[in-house]
Amino acid sequence: MTRRTAPVAELLDGARAGDRASLARLLSLVERGADEAREVSRLTYPLSGGGYTVGLTGAPGAGKSTLTSATIGHLRAQGEEVAVLAIDPSSPFTGGAILGDRVRMQDHATDPGVFIRSMATRGHLGGLSLATPEAVRVLDAVGRRWILVETVGVGQVEVEIAGKADTTVVVLNPGWGDSVQANKAGLMEIADVFVINKADRKGVEETRRDIEQMLELSDLGHDAWRPPIIAVVATERRGVDQLWEAVVAHREFITASGELRRRREFRLREELREIVARRLEQRARQITTGERWDALQDGVLARTIDPWSAADEMLGTVGA
Amino acid sequence: MTRRTAPVAELLDGARAGDRASLARLLSLVERGADEAREVSRLTYPLSGGGYTVGLTGAPGAGKSTLTSATIGHLRAQGEEVAVLAIDPSSPFTGGAILGDRVRMQDHATDPGVFIRSMATRGHLGGLSLATPEAVRVLDAVGRRWILVETVGVGQVEVEIAGKADTTVVVLNPGWGDSVQANKAGLMEIADVFVINKADRKGVEETRRDIEQMLELSDLGHDAWRPPIIAVVATERRGVDQLWEAVVAHREFITASGELRRRREFRLREELREIVARRLEQRARQITTGERWDALQDGVLARTIDPWSAADEMLGTVGA
Repeated sequence: MTRRTAPVAELLDGARAGDRASLARLLSLVERGADEAREVSRLTYPLSGGGYTVGLTGAPGAGKSTLTSATIGHLRAQGEEVAVLAIDPSSPFTGGAILGDRVRMQDHATDPGVFIRSMATRGHLGGLSLATPEAVRVLDAVGRRWILVETVGVGQVEVEIAGKADTTVVVLNPGWGDSVQANKAGLMEIADVFVINKADRKGVEETRRDIEQMLELSDLGHDAWRPPIIAVVATERRGVDQLWEAVVAHREFITASGELRRRREFRLREELREIVARRLEQRARQITTGERWDALQDGVLARTIDPWSAADEMLGTVGA
Repeated sequence: MTRRTAPVAELLDGARAGDRASLARLLSLVERGADEAREVSRLTYPLSGGGYTVGLTGAPGAGKSTLTSATIGHLRAQGEEVAVLAIDPSSPFTGGAILGDRVRMQDHATDPGVFIRSMATRGHLGGLSLATPEAVRVLDAVGRRWILVETVGVGQVEVEIAGKADTTVVVLNPGWGDSVQANKAGLMEIADVFVINKADRKGVEETRRDIEQMLELSDLGHDAWRPPIIAVVATERRGVDQLWEAVVAHREFITASGELRRRREFRLREELREIVARRLEQRARQITTGERWDALQDGVLARTIDPWSAADEMLGTVGA
């Protein structure tokens, strides 16, 4: 008898009972984005919604992974379980490691209360942008209450993904200006909590003033949450408890105000719209190959048919 | 009797007989992108292919409009007719004018051998990227042999449009580095001819060496066209004749080598593919509104259906 992959429902039962290998397989199916990924989505979606996602983002080298590791330690000391999804290509979780971080992460490797997963999305139709919420829902559906999502805050897609957490922590360093210049506005927009990591270096107060000035300019309503700015030295776990207090305070604030519900609904609507768009793109790719396509292209090159008419003929519509 | 717009075929006949108002109307239809735009496309496409497009691009303030104006003067002195399509928001043709340039342009305003049109593309499904080749084909179909397309070389879309000309002239200034930093690679890739405009300022030789160094790095094949670098003072029309000689030399080179044909075919294939993609996007927008969409969204928010299944239901497919 050959070894076969267990059906998705079976993997889900296993993962919900605490089997890490089953959980890892479910996430692999999501990454691969094959038909089984749709099955994973179908089965995990109704079970999700109880977990809370915290995004950690910032420039490469800002110390996000060290901070993630320190945060895991803090949560574990409080008896909380935690899952980490690392979609930062510079993260030691995803491979671009420096030894120190890797060793630090090993601290949690054998702890059953911690589940760490790096994301690779070859094959997934929607790339990171659609694979990430699906992976989060898998972790949520198997009962993880805290889900940390570590992303590098460089590039529009990455910043967008970071902004899709319930609470988003933007990690900066003293004298941060240059490293995040291109995405400053984007990062300011998604931040619920600011961390100035490596706060044992000089320039902490200037950076704090910079952030405060930008917050002034962004004209928050007087009822709105005002992102606190927490100085942290992640390598020594200094300030991590204050960071977590800020995250919990933000969670309470947006839960009470109804903002959490609104955010999640908005995200789901956006996700649905994006899935429709990706499905149609997929169709466009399917359409723009094959004999009929070649014939229409030849017609366009020979000027016997214009490009718009050719496109409409390919799509089986006239006008519209 | 109310005044009605003439049918497209009638406008085309008028424009081909030299009526400027008819030509202007055809271009307005293209910009508006309504059903008549498809009719314009259908009728002009078989008539086009005889014109030659020269793109002029560069950073705002590089002096593109002054150069365009000087080039028009040069062509008119040789008895050539010319059409200009200005899709540069900072161009005096499109509105963001300084008085000097505007006056200079007025020189050509009453010349029947010159047709100048600025592009606005509100309403066009494909934006500038698809409206521009359509507008070029209109000018081509009514018999314009030289079509200058002025674009600002800032932003990916603009650089792409600039690169779609038969010959692309990239306009730089002495000490150009900073102004085009972000698009340097893109501009290097599309340039067939370099102009160092405002060459009466210092730094011309350094800029020339910069460009030459980058050309070395870009590893042109030994049979390939090597973009010449022409020093110009457009305000005094100095160097404009050499610029035009370089354009004509490039035209002869790519015509003889078959490159012109390959470029045009590649552009048409790309355009066709883009039209298909835009049509599908349009469908996605049509799909993601209405009662059925609202009901599916509500289902997703209530977690009675997952997003992928909802999207597939909306698209009328299961799987794929």
